[in-house]
Amino acid sequence: MAKKLKIGFLGGVGEIGKNMTVIEYGDSIVVIDAGLTFPSEEMLGVDVVIPDFSYLVENKEKVKAVICTHGHEDHIGAIPYLLQVVDTPVIFGSRLTLGLIRSKLEEFSLKAKMKTVDAGSEISVDCFKIRFYKVCHSIAGALALSIDTPQGVIFHTGDFKIDHTPIDNEQMDFYALAELGKKGVKLMLSDSTNAERPGHTISERKVGESISRIFAANEKRRIIVATFASNLHRIQQILDIAAASGRRVVLSGRSVIKVVELGKTLKLLRYDDNLIVSEAAMKKIPPEKLCIICTGSQGERVSALTRMAAGEHPSVTVGIKDTVIISASAIPGNEKSIYNVINSLYRLGAEVIYAAIEDVHTSGHAHQEELKMMLSLIRPKYFIPVHGEFRHLKIHAGIAQAMGVKKENILIPELGWSVEVAKDGLKKLDGIKAGNSYVDGDAVGDLEPVIKDRRQLSADGFIIVLLTVNVENGKVPMPPEIITRGMAALSEEEIAEMKKQIADAVKNIKYRNSDNRETIKSTIRRTVRKMLYASSQSTPMIVPIVVEK
Amino acid sequence: MAKKLKIGFLGGVGEIGKNMTVIEYGDSIVVIDAGLTFPSEEMLGVDVVIPDFSYLVENKEKVKAVICTHGHEDHIGAIPYLLQVVDTPVIFGSRLTLGLIRSKLEEFSLKAKMKTVDAGSEISVDCFKIRFYKVCHSIAGALALSIDTPQGVIFHTGDFKIDHTPIDNEQMDFYALAELGKKGVKLMLSDSTNAERPGHTISERKVGESISRIFAANEKRRIIVATFASNLHRIQQILDIAAASGRRVVLSGRSVIKVVELGKTLKLLRYDDNLIVSEAAMKKIPPEKLCIICTGSQGERVSALTRMAAGEHPSVTVGIKDTVIISASAIPGNEKSIYNVINSLYRLGAEVIYAAIEDVHTSGHAHQEELKMMLSLIRPKYFIPVHGEFRHLKIHAGIAQAMGVKKENILIPELGWSVEVAKDGLKKLDGIKAGNSYVDGDAVGDLEPVIKDRRQLSADGFIIVLLTVNVENGKVPMPPEIITRGMAALSEEEIAEMKKQIADAVKNIKYRNSDNRETIKSTIRRTVRKMLYASSQSTPMIVPIVVEK
Repeated sequence: MAKKLKIGFLGGVGEIGKNMTVIEYGDSIVVIDAGLTFPSEEMLGVDVVIPDFSYLVENKEKVKAVICTHGHEDHIGAIPYLLQVVDTPVIFGSRLTLGLIRSKLEEFSLKAKMKTVDAGSEISVDCFKIRFYKVCHSIAGALALSIDTPQGVIFHTGDFKIDHTPIDNEQMDFYALAELGKKGVKLMLSDSTNAERPGHTISERKVGESISRIFAANEKRRIIVATFASNLHRIQQILDIAAASGRRVVLSGRSVIKVVELGKTLKLLRYDDNLIVSEAAMKKIPPEKLCIICTGSQGERVSALTRMAAGEHPSVTVGIKDTVIISASAIPGNEKSIYNVINSLYRLGAEVIYAAIEDVHTSGHAHQEELKMMLSLIRPKYFIPVHGEFRHLKIHAGIAQAMGVKKENILIPELGWSVEVAKDGLKKLDGIKAGNSYVDGDAVGDLEPVIKDRRQLSADGFIIVLLTVNVENGKVPMPPEIITRGMAALSEEEIAEMKKQIADAVKNIKYRNSDNRETIKSTIRRTVRKMLYASSQSTPMIVPIVVEK
Repeated sequence: MAKKLKIGFLGGVGEIGKNMTVIEYGDSIVVIDAGLTFPSEEMLGVDVVIPDFSYLVENKEKVKAVICTHGHEDHIGAIPYLLQVVDTPVIFGSRLTLGLIRSKLEEFSLKAKMKTVDAGSEISVDCFKIRFYKVCHSIAGALALSIDTPQGVIFHTGDFKIDHTPIDNEQMDFYALAELGKKGVKLMLSDSTNAERPGHTISERKVGESISRIFAANEKRRIIVATFASNLHRIQQILDIAAASGRRVVLSGRSVIKVVELGKTLKLLRYDDNLIVSEAAMKKIPPEKLCIICTGSQGERVSALTRMAAGEHPSVTVGIKDTVIISASAIPGNEKSIYNVINSLYRLGAEVIYAAIEDVHTSGHAHQEELKMMLSLIRPKYFIPVHGEFRHLKIHAGIAQAMGVKKENILIPELGWSVEVAKDGLKKLDGIKAGNSYVDGDAVGDLEPVIKDRRQLSADGFIIVLLTVNVENGKVPMPPEIITRGMAALSEEEIAEMKKQIADAVKNIKYRNSDNRETIKSTIRRTVRKMLYASSQSTPMIVPIVVEK
């Protein structure tokens, strides 16, 4: 059988998050990204969600490399879990990406072979020749990649935006991309996160200008800035503005301290060593000469800013002389937590400046005009939009079509699709196993049945019916005991009536040494369910327990 | 003791929703609005949230009237619950408002005395003389009101926006408002929902123009429009556009059918009787000659549009020849459900047009320039922003200050505040009982303990430890039984170890006729908690049951 070039979608399509794409030819698999996603509210009790790795586990001997396009959790967060089930020969990424992976692996006491790549690097993995291109994004060290395959060149944008005035002064290499396009790209996979948004993202530098103006207008006040720890360019700008306005900087929150240290080590952040002072040393500096950079821009429960807002931060007390800048936008689902933090900060008397009020944030994902520019540069024959919910992919597909990609050459992928890149086009093959794998403490895998139970418990609680049976004569000697939790309280009359109805329902079932225990249990369930539903439409979990006496 | 004019805040401040304001002088209370709010995701299992009515129950003989400014749920939704605990002599509202209340009361088999008021109406309730003013909002029949009190005039905007080209052609009566302002308003309470938003809302008529363009561009396709059932002006526009483009209209969804009927009866909606056809008659009409107006603009689980998206609607099958317009914006918290519906509609092949893509919706709440206009017209001496989270109130307070209201004359209220309007200013009095009262099936009240249990259950499930003791000798004859639900499964080894540890822990506690049952139970709880936390950081609810043998 002739070898096929196949692309498998294990994550990041039909959803925002847990990005993972599999490129396969013969006995060689290269995995692009291994990300996680944070659970939505209906995934009760789940810590994080990772891709179902079954396909890679089944083909573990084929896996030759994992390439991480950048260091965000939705691109590297599943690496520790992947390493535990698939021996991964090598992980490629930029310096910052690998630095972040390394610190993650330390937490898990794991090790992996890693190789640094950068814009312009070229590597070979079996039959694949892979080349990297700098792209702008909300984290430093983000890369796009082209893969020379036996079926032509595949180009994957990773997450990107186009910023003509980036903070590191390293623009995207439009020449390299245009040259690639000129040589001929068979298939492009491109970031669709902001495909709904018209126009162009604002430059990261513009955000700096807004923050700079806010610093100037607040020179008599302490300034607290919450932002994404991994956004080194944002942090560089804040450090520069603080230094220029004669302030010292305090870092608050584990991840911001960790990432700034890493950024300094990797020479991705540049600042005078005197600039940063410890929380302990902060007291000696007048508040108006301080800038606190902290975590908590998403209203995360245990972050520095959330603690400040709750009056629970060990060394920062927020008050009427503080101006708080939330230099971030809400990741969907976090709106409420962030607004709670903003409300609390206002209640403490602080001034609060956030994205709804001023341009203190910009997205790291291309808007429509940037998507078009990428299509214009690469001019792919085939197009697959990735990284987005179905609506984003669909709209991005429409943009590609408007830009001249033939309708029949565009494919909107779904999770678990396997697509062959053949000479004469894209072909959908049989699906591969894909989906959500839940992490809850130690447990990893298909926790759907457990979550379903939790859903019932969360809505209506549970009721235990404890029934004693006499083994001698098979009779029920006394009324059952009823224990409820998480249910709106039953009145004494309701409990008495329930006991009576249960006793009536089971009185004619003679207990025969546990053979018919299930019959008794299901009779109890039916009786209780009927009664509760009639009285209050509630459907708690009913747990009958039959005890022999 | 001299009588005081007091304003009590039972809802709608420090929050969006369940609006309820109490105006009190001597033995007279007038209540403005009695709204509900929908539970946020952490209020597990709750149906709706209403204000804590304790203060009104304690003062029930003082309650002379309830005035509803308009018919949205966050202004009338708590009426049926209020009537059950406080004998309310009369409810005032516009025709549509009372029509909606009436239909709500029918569902609860309740009756109330109601009196219709309208813009220009003037009523007296004890010492209060109350006058009504038309305002524009996303529902017809919205009213603002002024109250002549012994301490001067109070003006309450209700929810409002300024629309110079409203669909009913009845502009706000700027003259009446300006005249009121000229005469002198002591205190204004004003809607703050959109205080963060600069500029001016777009006119409802502009939305009609967008929808009209979409109809024109889709003349070969069936059009499905989901919108808020209560937005009669939106529905009027859709009916008019459908009629003008030669389409018949099908209504789908209980609330849209109900409200359109009510609107027709009250002569608030005008359309030719032939225009609307039943779902059953729909089959005889070519799809491109149909417009379906339906519920589900918030992705509500059992609504018409959600069913269509899931392929479960009894009479509408969505496909590639449909254009779906979602003429609404997401109420915060509903984003995910709506996007799920949009993704599903796209997957079915439909075109979907929503607020992120085109101007198919406008807000019913004033933006900053409209708030300023209201302040300019009324020119109140004192100002209290209402209807908003703290951040909205705070920003609205800033706007009022910028408009010339003295800083010391502005007060940002919190839930449960009682404020005296005295000759020389606003005075904060002792607080009154206020907060969330939860409705869960039949139960109404403080369900916080129940919800706390549900929260624990939803995160980690529960574990039942069933321990049998011998009453004769107080010993434990056999290892306990373990039942778990909603927990990530324990391994057989873990269960064996747990049984052993429990048996060890209780073996020296001699059971003495239930006196020390609690000691045994707490020993079990401690043992299990320690063990589970060490192995997996999970903290399920532990339910020890001790059975005598």
